[in-house]
Amino acid sequence: MSHLTAMKARDLGIPFEGTTGKYNSISDVKGVEVGHCTLIEGEGELKVGKGPIRTGVTAIFPTGKNPDKVYAALFSYNGNGEMTGSHWVNESGQLKGPICLTNTHSVGVVRDAIIQWRIDNNFYTDPIFWSLPVVAETYDGLLNDINGFHIKKEHVFLACDKAKGGKVMEGSVGGATGNICHGFKGGFGTSSRRVSEYTIGLCVQTNYGKREHFTINGVPVGKEISDYKPEIQIKQPRLDTEKQENGSIIVIAATDAPLLPYQLKRLVKRITAGLARIGGYGGHTSGDLFLGFSTANLIVDPSKSRVKTVESLSDMYLTPFFKAVAEATEEAIINALINAKTMTGINGNTVHALPQSEVQEIFAKCRL
Amino acid sequence: MSHLTAMKARDLGIPFEGTTGKYNSISDVKGVEVGHCTLIEGEGELKVGKGPIRTGVTAIFPTGKNPDKVYAALFSYNGNGEMTGSHWVNESGQLKGPICLTNTHSVGVVRDAIIQWRIDNNFYTDPIFWSLPVVAETYDGLLNDINGFHIKKEHVFLACDKAKGGKVMEGSVGGATGNICHGFKGGFGTSSRRVSEYTIGLCVQTNYGKREHFTINGVPVGKEISDYKPEIQIKQPRLDTEKQENGSIIVIAATDAPLLPYQLKRLVKRITAGLARIGGYGGHTSGDLFLGFSTANLIVDPSKSRVKTVESLSDMYLTPFFKAVAEATEEAIINALINAKTMTGINGNTVHALPQSEVQEIFAKCRL
Amino acid sequence: MSHLTAMKARDLGIPFEGTTGKYNSISDVKGVEVGHCTLIEGEGELKVGKGPIRTGVTAIFPTGKNPDKVYAALFSYNGNGEMTGSHWVNESGQLKGPICLTNTHSVGVVRDAIIQWRIDNNFYTDPIFWSLPVVAETYDGLLNDINGFHIKKEHVFLACDKAKGGKVMEGSVGGATGNICHGFKGGFGTSSRRVSEYTIGLCVQTNYGKREHFTINGVPVGKEISDYKPEIQIKQPRLDTEKQENGSIIVIAATDAPLLPYQLKRLVKRITAGLARIGGYGGHTSGDLFLGFSTANLIVDPSKSRVKTVESLSDMYLTPFFKAVAEATEEAIINALINAKTMTGINGNTVHALPQSEVQEIFAKCRL
Amino acid sequence: MSHLTAMKARDLGIPFEGTTGKYNSISDVKGVEVGHCTLIEGEGELKVGKGPIRTGVTAIFPTGKNPDKVYAALFSYNGNGEMTGSHWVNESGQLKGPICLTNTHSVGVVRDAIIQWRIDNNFYTDPIFWSLPVVAETYDGLLNDINGFHIKKEHVFLACDKAKGGKVMEGSVGGATGNICHGFKGGFGTSSRRVSEYTIGLCVQTNYGKREHFTINGVPVGKEISDYKPEIQIKQPRLDTEKQENGSIIVIAATDAPLLPYQLKRLVKRITAGLARIGGYGGHTSGDLFLGFSTANLIVDPSKSRVKTVESLSDMYLTPFFKAVAEATEEAIINALINAKTMTGINGNTVHALPQSEVQEIFAKCRL
Repeated sequence: MSHLTAMKARDLGIPFEGTTGKYNSISDVKGVEVGHCTLIEGEGELKVGKGPIRTGVTAIFPTGKNPDKVYAALFSYNGNGEMTGSHWVNESGQLKGPICLTNTHSVGVVRDAIIQWRIDNNFYTDPIFWSLPVVAETYDGLLNDINGFHIKKEHVFLACDKAKGGKVMEGSVGGATGNICHGFKGGFGTSSRRVSEYTIGLCVQTNYGKREHFTINGVPVGKEISDYKPEIQIKQPRLDTEKQENGSIIVIAATDAPLLPYQLKRLVKRITAGLARIGGYGGHTSGDLFLGFSTANLIVDPSKSRVKTVESLSDMYLTPFFKAVAEATEEAIINALINAKTMTGINGNTVHALPQSEVQEIFAKCRL
Repeated sequence: MSHLTAMKARDLGIPFEGTTGKYNSISDVKGVEVGHCTLIEGEGELKVGKGPIRTGVTAIFPTGKNPDKVYAALFSYNGNGEMTGSHWVNESGQLKGPICLTNTHSVGVVRDAIIQWRIDNNFYTDPIFWSLPVVAETYDGLLNDINGFHIKKEHVFLACDKAKGGKVMEGSVGGATGNICHGFKGGFGTSSRRVSEYTIGLCVQTNYGKREHFTINGVPVGKEISDYKPEIQIKQPRLDTEKQENGSIIVIAATDAPLLPYQLKRLVKRITAGLARIGGYGGHTSGDLFLGFSTANLIVDPSKSRVKTVESLSDMYLTPFFKAVAEATEEAIINALINAKTMTGINGNTVHALPQSEVQEIFAKCRL
Repeated sequence: MSHLTAMKARDLGIPFEGTTGKYNSISDVKGVEVGHCTLIEGEGELKVGKGPIRTGVTAIFPTGKNPDKVYAALFSYNGNGEMTGSHWVNESGQLKGPICLTNTHSVGVVRDAIIQWRIDNNFYTDPIFWSLPVVAETYDGLLNDINGFHIKKEHVFLACDKAKGGKVMEGSVGGATGNICHGFKGGFGTSSRRVSEYTIGLCVQTNYGKREHFTINGVPVGKEISDYKPEIQIKQPRLDTEKQENGSIIVIAATDAPLLPYQLKRLVKRITAGLARIGGYGGHTSGDLFLGFSTANLIVDPSKSRVKTVESLSDMYLTPFFKAVAEATEEAIINALINAKTMTGINGNTVHALPQSEVQEIFAKCRL
Repeated sequence: MSHLTAMKARDLGIPFEGTTGKYNSISDVKGVEVGHCTLIEGEGELKVGKGPIRTGVTAIFPTGKNPDKVYAALFSYNGNGEMTGSHWVNESGQLKGPICLTNTHSVGVVRDAIIQWRIDNNFYTDPIFWSLPVVAETYDGLLNDINGFHIKKEHVFLACDKAKGGKVMEGSVGGATGNICHGFKGGFGTSSRRVSEYTIGLCVQTNYGKREHFTINGVPVGKEISDYKPEIQIKQPRLDTEKQENGSIIVIAATDAPLLPYQLKRLVKRITAGLARIGGYGGHTSGDLFLGFSTANLIVDPSKSRVKTVESLSDMYLTPFFKAVAEATEEAIINALINAKTMTGINGNTVHALPQSEVQEIFAKCRL
């Protein structure tokens, strides 16, 4: 369901602003590792507990598989979603990996499994410790047997163990396996930008948006493509279900620039700008939660010394990072869609891939 | 580990301000139901996965076992803790029951189990739905085999099914089973206040605080009681562990006064005042998360009508509620301690009950 | 400096989504009144305290000139700006008119003058009262002698007294007189949208943005127009001054839909989406503060009754309002620019109007 | 109206926890300077614009009279008050001196005057600059002709120019001149604590609280003193005016410990604990706004280098600071009351000083 050889939206000739890192990926930020566990099993009618299954887990490590903490911050654009661990991120301005992404109804099992994985991987040296892992989600119940609770702790261990740097799989993988975005098959996407000597990278789990608002670089692609509509049967349709957004988008941003928590908070707020340019505006039913971290200052805990020295970017140099995070958000969303293949899930529900040739044609005729 | 016949701090002659409801309990707010599932098994040396077990689950239903939502708000005094579902409470100003309390490392299993329980109890009428349950926690790993992950979904179902109004068990029960508070055995406690024709009730899961700061009605009880110290062995003591707070306090407040979300937010902030008067001030390692809801306006979703009519207390009448929530917090904490018996857990660790006769003697000699 | 006959961006053939109200103005929300006091005096070299003067005051009344309060909420996208009264808006979810807009260094005089105006206009019936007026600002010191403190309380009284419904002057008027936006002459603009039986209107004071990011309906207008650059002399240019955004945008949104404070908070967050589509992303030096209110529930204070009945839109109907507020933000910004004429201020600094014919030509060649 | 020789509550034998700095004052934090301008003129009936006048301005400089910025954070316990500059403190985690305190209706004139004072004192080196000064307030209209707007910019200049380190005047001085606290004459008070090698100091402008809640070290002093009630005539008493709190408390905390903005945010939240122990709980009509800053990292702006190195206390050492800030809040409030003499203001309204001998007697009979 995903390309073995990752494709990027730029390969289609879609122009994006800014200079990317080597892999155009969150993993361009040194130390960041990503792993997916993807569950695709069964076909046909939904039998709760049996499938069909179209879901998974994605694990993101800010600084490889070690227990040091990084400065972090989050922003809730629309809180119709879950991101566990948020209270401690808000309070301490820090987090510890892995960050995991999954489906809405499996957040709990993933959250507790992270604690187990950390124990098994010697993340804790104190005899007394407690963990407040960060797990976020999108709803995949239009394709996946979400109430079958198919994610088990072993899937979390697998996503964590497989996490690595370098090229990252995109499309219908990991927590994004059963996602739908702007009426096309959504998925996991990533992108990066260079800002002076620094890199900012981010990844998205895209499950939001209406077709008619889908826009790439100002071009109203969604309005131009009238075919390829989702084929989804809902027996007793919820009021306005088909007229409204009902998904979510989770964004995880990383940078090696030395940003303190208050600076990261500012950074992740600007993810809204990238999202808006693609056509997202935080619909009522959407969980649009954005998390950012900086790998520049590793925080070792418990600390040997009362006072530590940290680096901080001077605030007047922040604006290019704000611009970069918005741009990378746009590109990561499109990378997710470009890599996600057409998928059929429960009850034969089918969501189509963004048709690449149509996108290219639309771009050909409408650019200045 | 808890009184069959609930005792209240007032029974010891400790004076508290204000007029309580019938049961001096959160259940004095009509519709509120509380249920506990308490796990106490095994003795002796800690064998992770085997025990000893001293933990549990508490379920609180705002409006009985029905799926209507109530207006709600939360306040994080110190966010070293988890309360899932917070993003949606913050965004929508609403929540749906049950709210569950458990130990830090079992939040996930409880969270997903609530979804299962709701499915099994017909909380969802739409074919498409998603759930963002509210689960909060305190750390019980000094008495409980917390990394054995002994809470299972069946324990959650039990706590939910047993929930009822009227008298509520206090002390070492439910999620508070293995708690420690101000160096005494902590637990679950509840209290209520009448404000004009309304009731405000709350319950606490108390696992915070140092002995030396423990104060009742201005009397420095903790300083006066030098015995009954916790007998806890930590092989490689964490720096400053014994000198610092390392617990948490969760408070759930309910009222039948018609408070809108912004008013509830103001209400739960004042829980800090009650906590402060007992001796809590949000130590670094404490998760002090306070949630409040009003049962006056039930929110049926999906709504049949575009506009609904709701009642709202005029703001100028709020101050007595602020006073009441602070008072009820004080009293609920003391009720928790009064009802929690001495407990021995992992590795023979023992935490003593608050000695009632000493408390009475101290009060006898120091009041004006 | 502003059109006697207001022009709208739609008059240039620029397409915008959605249906506007009668005046395509915030005043389409019944009861909303707007008044400007514009100060344009002197030419030539800056002599602090003498001029030249290019500044003013705008007053916005939510419900005409009466002291009732309305539900309100605000969002700070980037807090490099002032909006007095914010603590009480956040706490109480309410505000009282007038809301005033001015330049950064005159916020104080305007703020105190509002209190005087309210006293003179019998806004207070209690012998004891205090006021926390809402005043926001943008920096106009590239055209105006901002450190001459030319705004006096009489200017505030004038703006308040002149406030009325119906057609509202746009362009270089009121608090927006000396504004610069995307390298063109900025100003005050307004727009509205119909959503079912409701209206949402907003107004903007636009002083933010770089030329190269300026985009209308996806068309990169700013990149296409290389002429008409601001002619501004800065003796010792601040590091990166010319490369960075250094302005602000203030947005005031009004609706007659019955939104409660928590719903208004959600609404004003979506202003970011409209801003992003025009090319704003909250640069470090920008004060991007957004305020919204609903006129549907008037709050009389002091209240005669303990409980009042209020109307509230069901949340599931909110998404179209989110879409509308983003759209109206886009259009109001363009309306501001369309109406603002070229202005020369201190030291001969000149900022050019957005060239309308060029915009029309660019649109002609690039739309699908 | 204030002691030439500052008295401290400790001089009365009232016991407080913790070790103070040399002056038991915010000025024990090196670099902090405080200046007051006190206006006391006229007697008898209120004639708006003529007096009697009982008001003033207090100026607090974090790092002497220089334009460097310090890390800062604020917390609104109850936002029925004004603190200008808050959006930028929240966004940037920084502030620049002076911070000023005054009466509610003179915040504006003080705010703009700070900009003028900074210009006159060469705070700005760039040709382009804007200022977002921090000014907070309490309402003094029961003793002062608050609607006469008697504060002029010259009073602000005077408070700033007079600011110095060392001993700080307490009682009815500066912005606190006309304050009332727990039914006694309120005022300006200060206190400090030593925490390891660091100092934390704070000052309060106290204008909140009911008599019956007034408590010192757990002793219900307010209930024990039935005399000395305020003699205040209100012609048409506001509903519940006399039964409710209607004042405010502003707290400014300083430390030389290297706390980053997120740590300062946590610190100032704990001011609620000290306030609660004295009897404050954020009544509806109270503006309880708390600001904190650290002098350990001076932030020079514009910065010459892209990255700066800053010091940060390891989080696990924070708890003693939380304890200290709560203790210092308690003591500073009492210091304010101890130093404020009985005052008669408008219409002969009289507010009595806290009777020192009664306080000593009450303490003598009730301590353990």
